[in-house]
Amino acid sequence: MNVRGNLYIIAAPSGAGKTSLVKALLTHDNRVRVSVSHTTRSMRPGEHNGVDYNFVSMADFDALIADNQFLEYAEVFTNKYGTSRAWVEGQLDLGVDVILEIDWQGAQQVREQMPENISIFILPPSRAALESRLTGRGQDDAEVIKHRMSKAVSEMQHYDEFDYVVINDDFDLALNDLQSIFCAERLKRASQQRRYADLLQDLLSV
Amino acid sequence: MNVRGNLYIIAAPSGAGKTSLVKALLTHDNRVRVSVSHTTRSMRPGEHNGVDYNFVSMADFDALIADNQFLEYAEVFTNKYGTSRAWVEGQLDLGVDVILEIDWQGAQQVREQMPENISIFILPPSRAALESRLTGRGQDDAEVIKHRMSKAVSEMQHYDEFDYVVINDDFDLALNDLQSIFCAERLKRASQQRRYADLLQDLLSV
Repeated sequence: MNVRGNLYIIAAPSGAGKTSLVKALLTHDNRVRVSVSHTTRSMRPGEHNGVDYNFVSMADFDALIADNQFLEYAEVFTNKYGTSRAWVEGQLDLGVDVILEIDWQGAQQVREQMPENISIFILPPSRAALESRLTGRGQDDAEVIKHRMSKAVSEMQHYDEFDYVVINDDFDLALNDLQSIFCAERLKRASQQRRYADLLQDLLSV
Repeated sequence: MNVRGNLYIIAAPSGAGKTSLVKALLTHDNRVRVSVSHTTRSMRPGEHNGVDYNFVSMADFDALIADNQFLEYAEVFTNKYGTSRAWVEGQLDLGVDVILEIDWQGAQQVREQMPENISIFILPPSRAALESRLTGRGQDDAEVIKHRMSKAVSEMQHYDEFDYVVINDDFDLALNDLQSIFCAERLKRASQQRRYADLLQDLLSV
């Protein structure tokens, strides 16, 4: 019997290293997948449908909204981005842990629709480290950097809506932190009861 | 500022390998200690007061009970065994995670007195493995083994009062499971908020 996977929400300000951490987590654990978002924006060179995004028309996207097919969605400028409920449910039913890489607003929508989620917020180790990562290669002007920083701060102000907080100072330690969370959550009694139903019956018989 | 440690209750039937797992956990993590019980029984050769047990007289033990100084205690034949509340609280205040190696009855007493605990039940990988471990070196008669087995089953019937369930099939995997739980619990938001209060203030200022 498959034990249903856990749904994870992982959020962070840009510059906290979330994408690299999640990528490393996936290479070490084949029971975890990242949700591929739907989007109405055009495919860019090098992107693949179903891998980078599920590319759909605005009409299709709106029909999915009307049919309550998104766990969360957002409009960014003239494009829409969303997380497919059917895909997520399908993976969870297969026993796969699913990660949603979304912002605090998406997280709030998902919490309303699927309260049984585990949420993790990743933070940089200092303000200076964050600034330096957001400054990039020194090619952007001060106004742009200031805007990025202010966006990052406003995202971080929602860290206290999350279950776990991971500080990404040393990459390997932060990766180990993430792995520990995924491991520990699988060891919770309700999950283990389903996973080891036969063993438990064997052990507990008088 | 010290972040208060977590209180762990770890229970298992004899033969599940609890003692070896906890010992290995301690050698890898100096932020964890096992509570040393108080007892009224006599010290045996090789034992040390304060290391193996805190050896006290029956009168002192009863005075401690009357003063509500035990998180849990039990009477086994003519001797009493108990867990000192003051020692546990002192360690937690120092930021140390404290493990109580107790049975399901002790666990129930502790839950009433300190609801903020994390409890782990360790199970053997099969009935046959448990039987083989309880049989020892083949020197005990069938009645003794049958009694041990029945005690183990009756302990295991309380596994579902625990937060986490760890199966000790492969020792290293079970140790990694335990370590993940201890790591993940430290990453919970409330704990991290206290641990990183300064960082958070720095990051969140506008």
